[in-house]
Amino acid sequence: MTDTDLPAAVQRVLEHYLARAAGDLAEKYQPFGEAVAALRAFVLNGGKRLRPTFAWWGWRAAGGAADGPAAEGALHAAASLELIQACALIHDDLMDASAIRRGAPTVHVAFATKHRQQRWLGTAEGFGLAAAVLIGDLALVWADDMFAAADLPADALAAARPVWEAMRTEVLAGQYLDVHTQATGDASPEAALRVSELKTAAYTVARPLELGARLAGAADDLTTALRSFGTDIGVAFQLRDDLLGVFGNPEVTGKPAGDDLREGKRTLLVALGIERARDQDDEGAVEAITQAIGNPELTHDVLQRARRALVDVGAVEAVEHRIAELTERALNTLAAAGIGEPAATELTKLAHAATQRRR
Amino acid sequence: MTDTDLPAAVQRVLEHYLARAAGDLAEKYQPFGEAVAALRAFVLNGGKRLRPTFAWWGWRAAGGAADGPAAEGALHAAASLELIQACALIHDDLMDASAIRRGAPTVHVAFATKHRQQRWLGTAEGFGLAAAVLIGDLALVWADDMFAAADLPADALAAARPVWEAMRTEVLAGQYLDVHTQATGDASPEAALRVSELKTAAYTVARPLELGARLAGAADDLTTALRSFGTDIGVAFQLRDDLLGVFGNPEVTGKPAGDDLREGKRTLLVALGIERARDQDDEGAVEAITQAIGNPELTHDVLQRARRALVDVGAVEAVEHRIAELTERALNTLAAAGIGEPAATELTKLAHAATQRRR
Repeated sequence: MTDTDLPAAVQRVLEHYLARAAGDLAEKYQPFGEAVAALRAFVLNGGKRLRPTFAWWGWRAAGGAADGPAAEGALHAAASLELIQACALIHDDLMDASAIRRGAPTVHVAFATKHRQQRWLGTAEGFGLAAAVLIGDLALVWADDMFAAADLPADALAAARPVWEAMRTEVLAGQYLDVHTQATGDASPEAALRVSELKTAAYTVARPLELGARLAGAADDLTTALRSFGTDIGVAFQLRDDLLGVFGNPEVTGKPAGDDLREGKRTLLVALGIERARDQDDEGAVEAITQAIGNPELTHDVLQRARRALVDVGAVEAVEHRIAELTERALNTLAAAGIGEPAATELTKLAHAATQRRR
Repeated sequence: MTDTDLPAAVQRVLEHYLARAAGDLAEKYQPFGEAVAALRAFVLNGGKRLRPTFAWWGWRAAGGAADGPAAEGALHAAASLELIQACALIHDDLMDASAIRRGAPTVHVAFATKHRQQRWLGTAEGFGLAAAVLIGDLALVWADDMFAAADLPADALAAARPVWEAMRTEVLAGQYLDVHTQATGDASPEAALRVSELKTAAYTVARPLELGARLAGAADDLTTALRSFGTDIGVAFQLRDDLLGVFGNPEVTGKPAGDDLREGKRTLLVALGIERARDQDDEGAVEAITQAIGNPELTHDVLQRARRALVDVGAVEAVEHRIAELTERALNTLAAAGIGEPAATELTKLAHAATQRRR
């Protein structure tokens, strides 16, 4: 029953697809087989399966079947979102020079290490870079192939296709704006929100919901409601992420403490913190926050000072307030859309989980 | 008339597609608009349009119309191959740390320069890397969207889809094997041929031909013949490329003299050169060749010595002989396939052009 064990169902179809995606090339060309194995391990090793989950409940909200061949087709299409996400993460880790992902070395680091151990020619970093670029590309290509292979009526796939297309362009636009904002040092709340809207709200929540609903043949009023719900929950989700990126417990999040600050991420939390500290003429708070941003040697003390400043100027409270507001509006939209059970209850649960999680 | 002015027709449909691909995101988010503009400039600035050309003549060889709506649909699908190629080149240039492409700065260099000029935060190289990764990803995503949008009957697109899928996995496998072969220093002729078969024969010639033919509803015997023709011409094309990469005139090729040697490319030419020099116990020739490979400060003298050695041990002659053999076999396959005019004549011309070109 997919409704009650979605992560396992997603895992099953991903395993099935990835075992065949390379055709005979993985066996025929052994080094390529190793690259494929690295991608499989990355995809099957997890994550929260958020995007397929939203896509599935978009499907169910629009009256898609819970079981049977059509449900299997929808599940297959939904699971393909994990391959887009694999590309996004592998390429993101390379761009951010991150060393750890989901408790394991990132792809570029793992391949650089292999190069070093084998004492190969050229630089280990260059080899790691190339492997991460190409393995990410492979994930992106297979995402499309997997989506197109979903066993659903042609008109259902055709109805979902514009959503699929918009979502992929949006996530790349969001990634580019994120990189650009960090480079220009644009510290405005507007810049932070712009990135959240594309990278998280649209790509992670709203578009997957809409995609699933379109696969089930949803009419425009339902998809509009789901997108509105998804955008609010998505922005709230990102705001929660911003809080966890500064205040999260490393043992729960799996990321180093204060990672967002160290990486210089321009989040709404940080933007509001600086804006409020300036409005309050609190130079000490401005300094405490800015000293932590993009500081590769962020010490415990510097981190603690920045955290305290973000609390003191009211930025944390403002972000929490915004999360609560967005969640409330989203749940009102959901209630008004007249969605049946169990989708209505599950979407409500998802809204709470996404915005109140600890990791 | 697309038959007689294919590059202009390809340019026209690419321009049309790229003007709309970003939806409203390019205007709404100005920095993303700049990234899109860079991709457009890259794609519209050229290249030989080889892959669309082979796809078009595969279409025509299988009886596809020269004009009218179906021809326009086939042209659209064929042109989308240029977007895959844009991704391959942009990512390749990043992996190879190449500075120049088609007489202009490569994407990662152009964005790093922009970063430096604007005195942005972080490293210029990191920004260039991120821009090249994301702009390449965008090209890959749009390639799929453009292919899927071709206005052709659903069964025609469905028949071509397995070819489209195999081709994209093959080119990435070829790229990865290329990087891997350079890292391990595998100097065998087999390793060089393996990469050629995937990166050039399959991706550049055989698969585009097959794709076009499938779009026109070709039966298996014709697509088998076209693939066999394409594989031979593709390998011969790569061998010509290998010769030009060492002996080509920079003013004609647009690349620095001896570029393949400088970059350490493991081509069949080089592999045969070393193998033959060893068989002939010609230590001087072995040294002359190996000293040039992967030598970033390749001087005119070192290059000339390597060139002379490749000629003296008979590697150049052997490669020329192989090109001639492959071309002959390909033309025999073509003749036996009973392809009508003008496709038969055009494919013959393409076979000669691809294998006897000077750039």
